[in-house]
Amino acid sequence: MCELLGMVFNLPVRPNISFRGFRQRGETNPHGWGIAFYPDESAQIIKEPIKAKQSLLSKFLQDYQEIKSKIFIGHVRLTSVGIKSHKNTHPFQRELGGKDYVFAHNGTLSNYRNLELGRFNPIGETDSEHAFCHLLNLIETRGIKEWNNICFDWLAEKLERINQYGNFNCIFSDGKFLFCYHDKNGYNGLCFVQRKPPYGQIQLLDEDWKINLAEEKDPEQTGYIIATRKLTNEQWKNFKPGELIIFKNGKMIYSNQRNTPET
Amino acid sequence: MCELLGMVFNLPVRPNISFRGFRQRGETNPHGWGIAFYPDESAQIIKEPIKAKQSLLSKFLQDYQEIKSKIFIGHVRLTSVGIKSHKNTHPFQRELGGKDYVFAHNGTLSNYRNLELGRFNPIGETDSEHAFCHLLNLIETRGIKEWNNICFDWLAEKLERINQYGNFNCIFSDGKFLFCYHDKNGYNGLCFVQRKPPYGQIQLLDEDWKINLAEEKDPEQTGYIIATRKLTNEQWKNFKPGELIIFKNGKMIYSNQRNTPET
Repeated sequence: MCELLGMVFNLPVRPNISFRGFRQRGETNPHGWGIAFYPDESAQIIKEPIKAKQSLLSKFLQDYQEIKSKIFIGHVRLTSVGIKSHKNTHPFQRELGGKDYVFAHNGTLSNYRNLELGRFNPIGETDSEHAFCHLLNLIETRGIKEWNNICFDWLAEKLERINQYGNFNCIFSDGKFLFCYHDKNGYNGLCFVQRKPPYGQIQLLDEDWKINLAEEKDPEQTGYIIATRKLTNEQWKNFKPGELIIFKNGKMIYSNQRNTPET
Repeated sequence: MCELLGMVFNLPVRPNISFRGFRQRGETNPHGWGIAFYPDESAQIIKEPIKAKQSLLSKFLQDYQEIKSKIFIGHVRLTSVGIKSHKNTHPFQRELGGKDYVFAHNGTLSNYRNLELGRFNPIGETDSEHAFCHLLNLIETRGIKEWNNICFDWLAEKLERINQYGNFNCIFSDGKFLFCYHDKNGYNGLCFVQRKPPYGQIQLLDEDWKINLAEEKDPEQTGYIIATRKLTNEQWKNFKPGELIIFKNGKMIYSNQRNTPET
């Protein structure tokens, strides 16, 4: 069924705590894992078509000090469309308008080949990469250079249309904004938690592991973690069906279903 | 001045021996390192804007068992155009026609902004990424779907034209072919060595380290290593100035300056 992870902060952070929890989710999603982040305007994606917990590379990256980014996107895969292989492993990446877009999907689409691609071509065989290419084609056709609130409403409508082809949760980014869309029928779930000071102790749900965030976090650091299912014992909130939430610099800046985005 | 590495084999291989030697070259090229390979039709690029030998990730990858590919492209960077950052670190990557192109450059170009980009946009600030985007624009405009000998002659001519803007050695791939072009004035050098059975002992030039290839290599394995300067005590041969050599499946299949490509 796959699981998604998103992280968006006001300062570059290390992903180790959330990624540690997320790697456990590879147990039931053994066909691939991937993580994307932005050391600067360009994305770095690292992914493998093997189980996250069995990957020594995934273990190495969890503890690697050099990785810092304001935005992270993670994915663990249970195959539905497309064999177990690197080309079918999420996240996917394309340049559009000098921005490095990264995309990960949870769900299965039918008849997705009807979705027009323009000049974007999938390299692998998944419905997910096809949907990503379609989305980029829509963005290019619309002529979006910089994202703003009018574009956000338009985007929410387009994501709902893709959602008509099947189950569709997705997290994507252009390096500045983190776009998170939850399936219109509530398929599989998507939730978020805000991280802000004062920081206290949290516990991962997938293993007996606690950490005092006050010792880990810069007190200036605020942001959100987004995941298919809650990763910790914190107060996570559910996305609404069909909800698009957009984050930037660690803040929630848009929702198509909440009057007052939380700040 | 940067250094380039290319590897092309008939079977998926591990890059550890050549990458071990190549990482040493980061000593005089301390501003970044990157490696690209093809687990399948899709490329995996891993790069960092730090010295290769100081990077724990680079060390980890050298010995990592999961990496196997018929094609590898490596680069260590000494900054000329563009600050030390991830977006300016080679290799660069773009999808074109459903193929995942990867590109690395050694040299410095002037007035390169005159090179037309079409729909391809650099994310970083380098002459190199600009030249890559220009090359992709040429390939797209020419309508090349599958590479063949007529396209190869055309490509050699186009690379020579880019070379008019400055020093230009480059190695790039679409996942099937490995394209290696040497500067028309012989700038900085580019050389290759064939690896084929029977395998014997070789020694790395940058450190006191010997290895018996017969113990490492599948006896069916043949291919070429391409590098700015020779990495081992084997019989390396120099590219000619302005020479484009193209490899596929571990064989040399084209040169614009050799009547009989070596097989």
